[in-house]
Amino acid sequence: LKTAGHESKTEHRKKIALDAMGGDHAPGVVIDGAVMAAREFGPSGVEVVLVGREDDIKRELARHDTEGLPLSIVHAGQVVEMDEHTMAIKEKKDSSMVVGVRLVKEGQASAFVTAGNSGAAMAAALFGLGRIRGIDRPALATIYPAAPNPCLLIDMGANTDPKPDNLVQNALMGALYAERVMGIERPRVGLVSNGEEADKGNLLVRDAYKALASSQLNFVGNVEGKDIGKGMADVVVTDGFVGNVIVKLSEGLVSFLVRYLKRELTGGALNKLALVLMLPGLVLLLPGLALLLPALKRIARRMDYAEYGGALLLGVDGVIVIGHGRSNAKAIKNAVRAAWRGVEGQVLDSIKQGLAGPV
Amino acid sequence: LKTAGHESKTEHRKKIALDAMGGDHAPGVVIDGAVMAAREFGPSGVEVVLVGREDDIKRELARHDTEGLPLSIVHAGQVVEMDEHTMAIKEKKDSSMVVGVRLVKEGQASAFVTAGNSGAAMAAALFGLGRIRGIDRPALATIYPAAPNPCLLIDMGANTDPKPDNLVQNALMGALYAERVMGIERPRVGLVSNGEEADKGNLLVRDAYKALASSQLNFVGNVEGKDIGKGMADVVVTDGFVGNVIVKLSEGLVSFLVRYLKRELTGGALNKLALVLMLPGLVLLLPGLALLLPALKRIARRMDYAEYGGALLLGVDGVIVIGHGRSNAKAIKNAVRAAWRGVEGQVLDSIKQGLAGPV
Repeated sequence: LKTAGHESKTEHRKKIALDAMGGDHAPGVVIDGAVMAAREFGPSGVEVVLVGREDDIKRELARHDTEGLPLSIVHAGQVVEMDEHTMAIKEKKDSSMVVGVRLVKEGQASAFVTAGNSGAAMAAALFGLGRIRGIDRPALATIYPAAPNPCLLIDMGANTDPKPDNLVQNALMGALYAERVMGIERPRVGLVSNGEEADKGNLLVRDAYKALASSQLNFVGNVEGKDIGKGMADVVVTDGFVGNVIVKLSEGLVSFLVRYLKRELTGGALNKLALVLMLPGLVLLLPGLALLLPALKRIARRMDYAEYGGALLLGVDGVIVIGHGRSNAKAIKNAVRAAWRGVEGQVLDSIKQGLAGPV
Repeated sequence: LKTAGHESKTEHRKKIALDAMGGDHAPGVVIDGAVMAAREFGPSGVEVVLVGREDDIKRELARHDTEGLPLSIVHAGQVVEMDEHTMAIKEKKDSSMVVGVRLVKEGQASAFVTAGNSGAAMAAALFGLGRIRGIDRPALATIYPAAPNPCLLIDMGANTDPKPDNLVQNALMGALYAERVMGIERPRVGLVSNGEEADKGNLLVRDAYKALASSQLNFVGNVEGKDIGKGMADVVVTDGFVGNVIVKLSEGLVSFLVRYLKRELTGGALNKLALVLMLPGLVLLLPGLALLLPALKRIARRMDYAEYGGALLLGVDGVIVIGHGRSNAKAIKNAVRAAWRGVEGQVLDSIKQGLAGPV
C-alpha cells in the first residue's frame, strides 16, 4: 500500500481512481469494493487509487488484509455530500470528487469512478475535463439487462431536456461504445418511442427519428417500452428523463415482484400451512435444484443491478463511471471493472476518432 | 337479441356501446368478450350494444348461446383499420368508431368502448363529443397494478407533448376519478420524475411540480420510476409519452421475466435432467400448492393487463374506454366493466363539477 507517488514498478498499471467518500454507504462499502476489485483485477494490471480522507480510508482498509494488493491513496480533505447542490464542486476544490477528476485530467489515473452525488459528479467531470469535440452535452450510458443480449441504454439521466441533435450524438457515442467495448459489429440503434411507426413519438423523438434515419448509423427504428428488454437493438437511445424512469422502473419492478410474491405466498395462516405441507416435497426437490444452480445463479446475476456497476459518462474528455448511490461492494467492484473496460477498449479515443468520421 | 330500437323494458338498462370491429382480433374476440360481459354484468343492468357490420356480428354471435342476454346491434358499415391514419375518421362517417361515439353523443348509449386504432378513437371522441369545460386536452387514465393498492396512471398516451397546465388538469381529473370511482378519500397525487427533490425533472415536470404544489390537490411530490409500483401515490401524473413507456415497459418486463426464467430453467440437457429429478418432489408439493391456489390466482390476476380492460379517455364530454389493440375476450369484458363503472361512478359529472370548484 502506497500513500502517494505511485510510480516505478507499478507505472505500467492501469490506475483507476475511486471516490472513497462517494455513495450512501461510503467510505466503508467503497473500500470493501476497492479491495475486491484490487484482488480480482490486480492480476490483470489494475491499480485502484482511493481518493478521499486518508485517515478514513486507512481505518477502513485496516479491516482487510491488503498485503500486496495494488491499492494506493490520494488524500482529499473535503466531501461533496449526497444531497448537496451540484455546484458544491465549485467551492470544494479539495473534495474527493474534484481531486479524482483532476487525477484523470493530469494523466495520473486512466479513469475515475464515483458512487457519490451524481449531479455533482457530472458537473465535476464536465468542468474538469471538458467536452469531446463534436459532442454538445455528455450522456450517461448504462448496460440494460435485455435478453438474449444486454443492450446499452443512453442517456439514463445526464440531460433531461435534450435537442434532437443531442440524441443523434448520443446514438453515435453509444454505437462506438457498443462496437469497440462490447464487440458488436455494426450495432443496431433503436429510439425509445410510444409506437413503432416513424410518426410516433413526442416532438423530440419524431425529429430525432428523421435525423437518425438519414445518418450512417445502423438505425432500426423505434423501440416501444414492451420491446426494450427483448434485445431488438444493441444501443437504445432516449432522453435522460425517460432513460432514468426506464432504468429505475425496471429495477423497481423486479424487486417489487419478489417482495409481492413473497408477501402473497407467505402471508396468512392458510399459506403458512401450505408451505409446511410442501416441506417434504421441497426436500425432494433439492437434488434437482442443485443441478439448476448454475442457471439460477445466472438469472440472479442478470437481474442484479450491482452486476453492471454504473454508467459511463460519455462525451467528456476522460473515462468517468458514475455508480448507483446505494452501491454495495460488488457494485463498486463492477464499476471499477466498467471503467477499466472503458480504458482497455479505448472508448475515449474510439469516440474521438469516430466523431471525426462521417455520421 | 334486438337489432335496433332498444327501448321499452330495457330502457332502464345502462347501455354500453362496444366497437365490434376494433382490435387485432376483431370481430371474433370482441364478440366473445361482449357475450361474457352481457352474461356477467347483464344481471346488474348492463346492456352491451354491438356497433359494426351487422352480418359479421350476427355470424360471430351465432357461435354463442345468446338467448335472453342483454345484447343488441347497431349497424355501421365501415371500419377504421388498426394501421390507418387517425384522420380516417373524417372520411369514414359510418365507421363503427364514429357511430359508437355518436350513440354516446345522442344519449343512446352511456359509454363507448373500443379496442381499435387508439389514435383514431381519441380523435373520434374529441371531434364527436368535444372537451369538458376547463380541460384543454384529453388524457388516457389507466389502472396501474401497484401494491398494496393499484393506482391511477394518467396520461398513458393521449398527449405526448403537454404543457404544465395539461398535467395539472390531468392531476385534477385523475384525483376526481380516484375519489368518485375508486372510492379513495383525498387521493395522493404524485408526479413522475427522475428524482424525489422538487428541482428534479425536465422543464415540463419542474414547472408542473410548482403548479401542483400550490394547488388544492393532495400533492405528495415526485415519484421515481422505482417507486411507481410501491403505491406511494393514488394518482400518478405523467406526460403521454412517458406514461406509454411506463405501461408498456411494465407489461413487457413481466412477460419477459416469465419467458426468460422458462428458457433459462428448461434449456439444456442438465436443466432437463434437473426437472426430471424434481418430479417426485413436485408431486408431493401438490397438496400445498392447492392451498396456495387462491394466492397464485390473485397474483396472476394482478399481473394480467386483461384484468384492467383499458384506459378511460378523460376530458372529453362522454365516457370513452380505449382498450388494448391485442385485447383478448377477458380484456374486452373488463373494458366494458371499466366503462360501466365510469358511468355508475358518474365520472363525467364528477369531473365537470370538480372542475367548477377551486383547484
